[in-house]
Amino acid sequence: MKSSITYENSNLRIKWLASGTSTAWLEQAVANPIEVLIDHAHCERKAAGAALQLMFRYLCEPGLAEVLSPLVIEEIQHFERVLALLKTRGRYLEPLPAPPYGAALAKKIRKAEPGRMLDSFLVAGLIEARSHERMSLLASNSPDQELRELYAELLKSEARHFCLYWMLADERYDRRVITSRLGELSEFEASILVDLHPEPRMHS
Amino acid sequence: MKSSITYENSNLRIKWLASGTSTAWLEQAVANPIEVLIDHAHCERKAAGAALQLMFRYLCEPGLAEVLSPLVIEEIQHFERVLALLKTRGRYLEPLPAPPYGAALAKKIRKAEPGRMLDSFLVAGLIEARSHERMSLLASNSPDQELRELYAELLKSEARHFCLYWMLADERYDRRVITSRLGELSEFEASILVDLHPEPRMHS
Repeated sequence: MKSSITYENSNLRIKWLASGTSTAWLEQAVANPIEVLIDHAHCERKAAGAALQLMFRYLCEPGLAEVLSPLVIEEIQHFERVLALLKTRGRYLEPLPAPPYGAALAKKIRKAEPGRMLDSFLVAGLIEARSHERMSLLASNSPDQELRELYAELLKSEARHFCLYWMLADERYDRRVITSRLGELSEFEASILVDLHPEPRMHS
Repeated sequence: MKSSITYENSNLRIKWLASGTSTAWLEQAVANPIEVLIDHAHCERKAAGAALQLMFRYLCEPGLAEVLSPLVIEEIQHFERVLALLKTRGRYLEPLPAPPYGAALAKKIRKAEPGRMLDSFLVAGLIEARSHERMSLLASNSPDQELRELYAELLKSEARHFCLYWMLADERYDRRVITSRLGELSEFEASILVDLHPEPRMHS
């Protein structure tokens, strides 16, 4: 599948994703729109929780709270937006077992600083970049017009999120160090998705 | 000290606080305005974290995410507001050891449901009610006009927060059960504050 895997970041083009999403994922997602939508609500709340946790861990790091705090708010607003749509379809936040994706990526975050902070930014950015890629696919290919519109609307700010994580890394680390580590993590991220997870999820 | 310890909740008057704040606290807070302000930023981020955690714990509880999610956003916006003011004074989020208040209250939350959810609402509401009472005192008595204005501005929405927690409890529990448990918890809350904590904090 042709897929945009490089993202423009002002004048810099950053290759976040090592490979594009498979046709198999899109077919699975389009066939199970509500399950993917519920999972998406969970993704938004988890993204808010992760950004808040990151802000709490590095409270005294100047310039971090100012960037993460509005990001948390935006993720929560997206969560509210998805929840509202779910309710119009008579559904709610049913619990869904998470696919292995998030936990597998989190394990790659090094335990010691300064690697821990860099990896935290890059893993968060990778998840945002993959979500953005898949939401673009749904915004173009979902047979449900209301869902196409929802994903198109959420996409606009999602694109900003991985740029923010790049910026947070770029302000604090040597660019060669970032690029090299992003290369390793993005190869790993793509490898998790090679075999389609049997349950339909944003990151199956 | 004369202190408003009963709060109007539409047609219902709820006695949240068992006793008013001491003059000793106000003197301590007014003498250490920046330390209290930094602590207040920490209180706002902790309130956001606690509400988000509560939302995550009871995800499948209808009507909870819709109330807690905007509350999380408002707490984060307050955090941003306080952080911005701190920066104009050349200060930042310095780490401050927390007073025993929050941890002591958290220990009173019962481990088993349905008591756990009720206690979570009431403890969160009590902390909001005490913050509201003390921010009112600072809004009236701080010698620093900018701080008076800040606290007065934040107060308006803080008053809504403990009403929200009351509402969440009232929709799910028998009112006699709520009132009786709130009585116990508010007596305990007041007892923590009888001896002034030596470090100036919102809840010293």
